[in-house]
Amino acid sequence: MKYSKLFPKTIKQTPQDAKLISHKLLYRAGFIRESTAGRYYFLPLGMKVHQKIQKIVKEEMDKAGAQEMVSPVLHPKALWEETNRTTSVGFELMSIKDRSDMEFVLGGTAEEMFVDLVRKFQLSYKDLPLNLYQFSMKFRDEMRARGGLLRVREFVMKDAYSFDINEEEFLKEYENMKQTYTKIFKRMGLETIIVESDNGYIGGDYCHEFVVESEIGESKFLLNSDGTYAAHEDVAKFIPDRKNLDEGEKPLEEVKAVRGTTMEDGVKLHGLPLWQQIKDVLFVDEKGRFILALIRGDFDVNEIKLLHIIKGYHLRHATDKEIREKIHSEPGFISPVGIKKIIDKDVKLLVVADESLRTVKNAYGGANKKNKDLLNMNIDRDFTVDYEGDIALAKEEYLSPDGSGKLTTKKGIEVGNIFQLGFTYTSKLKGAEFVDKDGKKKPYYMGCYGIGIGRSLASIVEVYNDEKGIIWPDVVAPYQVHLLGLDLEEESVKGEAERVYELLKAEGVEVLFDDREDLRAGEKFADADLIGIPYRVVISKKTHSAGSASPSATSSGQARGKLEVKRRDQKQTEFLSFEELLKRLKAS
Amino acid sequence: MKYSKLFPKTIKQTPQDAKLISHKLLYRAGFIRESTAGRYYFLPLGMKVHQKIQKIVKEEMDKAGAQEMVSPVLHPKALWEETNRTTSVGFELMSIKDRSDMEFVLGGTAEEMFVDLVRKFQLSYKDLPLNLYQFSMKFRDEMRARGGLLRVREFVMKDAYSFDINEEEFLKEYENMKQTYTKIFKRMGLETIIVESDNGYIGGDYCHEFVVESEIGESKFLLNSDGTYAAHEDVAKFIPDRKNLDEGEKPLEEVKAVRGTTMEDGVKLHGLPLWQQIKDVLFVDEKGRFILALIRGDFDVNEIKLLHIIKGYHLRHATDKEIREKIHSEPGFISPVGIKKIIDKDVKLLVVADESLRTVKNAYGGANKKNKDLLNMNIDRDFTVDYEGDIALAKEEYLSPDGSGKLTTKKGIEVGNIFQLGFTYTSKLKGAEFVDKDGKKKPYYMGCYGIGIGRSLASIVEVYNDEKGIIWPDVVAPYQVHLLGLDLEEESVKGEAERVYELLKAEGVEVLFDDREDLRAGEKFADADLIGIPYRVVISKKTHSAGSASPSATSSGQARGKLEVKRRDQKQTEFLSFEELLKRLKAS
Repeated sequence: MKYSKLFPKTIKQTPQDAKLISHKLLYRAGFIRESTAGRYYFLPLGMKVHQKIQKIVKEEMDKAGAQEMVSPVLHPKALWEETNRTTSVGFELMSIKDRSDMEFVLGGTAEEMFVDLVRKFQLSYKDLPLNLYQFSMKFRDEMRARGGLLRVREFVMKDAYSFDINEEEFLKEYENMKQTYTKIFKRMGLETIIVESDNGYIGGDYCHEFVVESEIGESKFLLNSDGTYAAHEDVAKFIPDRKNLDEGEKPLEEVKAVRGTTMEDGVKLHGLPLWQQIKDVLFVDEKGRFILALIRGDFDVNEIKLLHIIKGYHLRHATDKEIREKIHSEPGFISPVGIKKIIDKDVKLLVVADESLRTVKNAYGGANKKNKDLLNMNIDRDFTVDYEGDIALAKEEYLSPDGSGKLTTKKGIEVGNIFQLGFTYTSKLKGAEFVDKDGKKKPYYMGCYGIGIGRSLASIVEVYNDEKGIIWPDVVAPYQVHLLGLDLEEESVKGEAERVYELLKAEGVEVLFDDREDLRAGEKFADADLIGIPYRVVISKKTHSAGSASPSATSSGQARGKLEVKRRDQKQTEFLSFEELLKRLKAS
Repeated sequence: MKYSKLFPKTIKQTPQDAKLISHKLLYRAGFIRESTAGRYYFLPLGMKVHQKIQKIVKEEMDKAGAQEMVSPVLHPKALWEETNRTTSVGFELMSIKDRSDMEFVLGGTAEEMFVDLVRKFQLSYKDLPLNLYQFSMKFRDEMRARGGLLRVREFVMKDAYSFDINEEEFLKEYENMKQTYTKIFKRMGLETIIVESDNGYIGGDYCHEFVVESEIGESKFLLNSDGTYAAHEDVAKFIPDRKNLDEGEKPLEEVKAVRGTTMEDGVKLHGLPLWQQIKDVLFVDEKGRFILALIRGDFDVNEIKLLHIIKGYHLRHATDKEIREKIHSEPGFISPVGIKKIIDKDVKLLVVADESLRTVKNAYGGANKKNKDLLNMNIDRDFTVDYEGDIALAKEEYLSPDGSGKLTTKKGIEVGNIFQLGFTYTSKLKGAEFVDKDGKKKPYYMGCYGIGIGRSLASIVEVYNDEKGIIWPDVVAPYQVHLLGLDLEEESVKGEAERVYELLKAEGVEVLFDDREDLRAGEKFADADLIGIPYRVVISKKTHSAGSASPSATSSGQARGKLEVKRRDQKQTEFLSFEELLKRLKAS
């Protein structure tokens, strides 16, 4: 490709909202442009990288035994209603009607579509295991799109769906995909950490994210010291340290408590430790139910864990008005003791206690009245709860659940994820069954597996760059060679540059040839550094020995008749013959 | 790929609504499945063919100097409003709102998106010519989807948009694309005819369809005897033969005419030729305007041509009620003579005459009153019109506009099209300008170019099939070799089949291996014929000589130690060594 004709050229400005390095560099170098917030054009250079990443994913998925196909983009909404996902996905889902008033959704994932397809066939156990995948446009009506390709509203995802006869067979496929994903990301230059994570609206019992460690990542996860435990903050577990469990239970006591409404106010007033205080957080879920979450004062509530326990989709904090008028309690003084007796009759209240309440005796906290506190509250004796479980947010320095010591916190970019689905979909979509050996129809045991192509691309740029621009790993670079023609006003140099360009192409080398005649060398070098193609090859007066052209050159001096070669990821420049360059290219 | 694991297997039934051969065969052989009407899954076999077709298109577009990129699927509706296409496309366009109430359309083409992109850059004449293309999902809210892939609501289209400094440069690109398209279709086995056609809602002054001749095609076109004139029925011209132009104009006369309302009734009553009668057709357009189309009695009105003349988008016939109550005329007795004087004041009526009225003198027809006719009507003298032009439908046996004799009618499948756009979009979308040599900003001169991938695929099947199934041309076949293992219950035959399968794969041959053990040979042969892979290779007791395996076999008898090879498109079976087979495969 001649750079003079490439659309578009590099530019110096970055968009005002560009904060991420990948956003700035991909924009300046001409790989992407935004249409509307979170919806991007992939320009010719960006397209090439996108396709190379896609090719790696395809090759490894095929090797892993998966079969590529593609489903329609518009999913009949009726299918999503069958699995109840119009409720659970809710606000991220866009829907559309056709002329006959049939409703469709623009899917963010395609579980329903693949199950609906597979149930059209009478498969038997002999047809399984089956893993079907596609590359297709996915849509998420995100609240906020992030600049660049990391959080967008429209993107190509490789999504795969596996169908197995039972859990045991599924687990083999899950492991197969784990290894395949690790290989895929490694091939494109990304080291990933496999992190337990939340399944969001996908469902199932467990899932894992593939995370590229990065300060700008939105995935916060916790890691034990030897890396054998890694879990997203949403799901990370820890062992709460045991506090005053040796203490005998003291009698419950209501005391005057003229204080502010924060936890610290309670600590100050009573001169007791924070951990001994009960933290009461009142939420309202999407059905209008009130949820009172109870947790040890030094811990925080993990809303994702809480949602799973109450089987809800969305939480918001209750307002002061609701606390007073519906619960008849007082902000800052909520207490589980007797709370169900004081609430409005039409209020549905669930009380959920974190397991950490079991590590404390004689806790203190509000009394559901202004300026009154309770001392020596003990679970079971003074109050009961609807659910008890793990609703605590894990943090740096907490104890790893495997007993291996303290946890540390990391941030990273989620580039892929794998989900156990079990019967989540095949139990809801009728007829999603295969015929087993015994002749009986049984539901498929499923999993699903996703990789965001654009997000992988941006992650590569986040990892591989310097102050001058992008440094593409060879396998995903848009071109292998960036050929710079300098001094092109001299006919013989120009002819030589053209010749080398043609020779490289004839050898099957992907080459971008900067053939512009009206530009200073410095600008061409700067463009090459910004675009980040692995090999920069310069032809100029210096390298060009009149009469003897490089492919069959006899060298006079270090530079004459040779090509000036520099790898983008290295400092030194070398002078190589055409054949030496070819050898290098074929080896890399 | 082992057939035992391929999703899905062939089936015997066809869908009830399947009328087209391509629909039936692609369905039965397991290449496609319908999700909702007009929205298809491409299953693994179908996906492979789809990708091979796409690869051919990509290679030729790249060779032709076009650059691949991709635009978002959701187009901001505001852009389509800027070009007025929300009106012109109207009922085929689906639109959707996001959470912030921003409106998007699901595009059937992407002119606005590409112009909007290009205008984000300050391109100069040096950056041109520019041709950008993409493969992306297109949406058409078709009134009726046709079974199979020929008329669908969602499909992958290669769409390209060219930007040039002027018409002269554009014409080079138009010719470049014409040749490129012909090459593309030829490579995939399709002979195409380039047919002048209507631009529909794309706009511009002229365009061409690439049509594969086929009885089941929806494109009806007219061809002169040597093929130098080919035009879609929508736009085809012809020379109307001159009738009684030597006759002197006779006086206009109103006569009693107790007759029915058809043209034939008039002929019978007056004993005059059909061509001498005026055919008056009254339409209503999308704005509620009445359009009276006048044409020679033996011709028919071409509504597409009529729409272009009145600059409308949609026509329907006026009802009898409207004719009586709004026009105050009478169904079957409409006349242009004096019609503007009798219509309701709030009625907007346009009278459009076909040029053919100039080939007749002393015409007869209705008198805007029941059972009254006019004789000896002559244009200009007895009535005037708002527009005069070509609104006639060309038909078989009419005279070719180039004077080369009579036209014949053909039918075909439109697989691609190319459009001159000129300034249609760049005049409406502000800032779609480049800087010319003289330093002035000028609008781009544009063209656009589309190929439907799925429709090409179906067309190939329509052309290449027999009573047993599909006969894929080598370049687009899902696999090159269909290896059938027979007698697999014998361990040594099975081992040999497995070995040949692995050897073929190692040689880079795409092979589908029918490894099923519980099937009769006849069923495997039938499946192979249905799926249509070019080379069928059989390994069985007959071909397998115990001890000496084929790749290094010494033959004993014709079959022993050899492979039984048959091409799907030929009758005879041959016995080849592994090396001979490889040679064949590499040659084809």
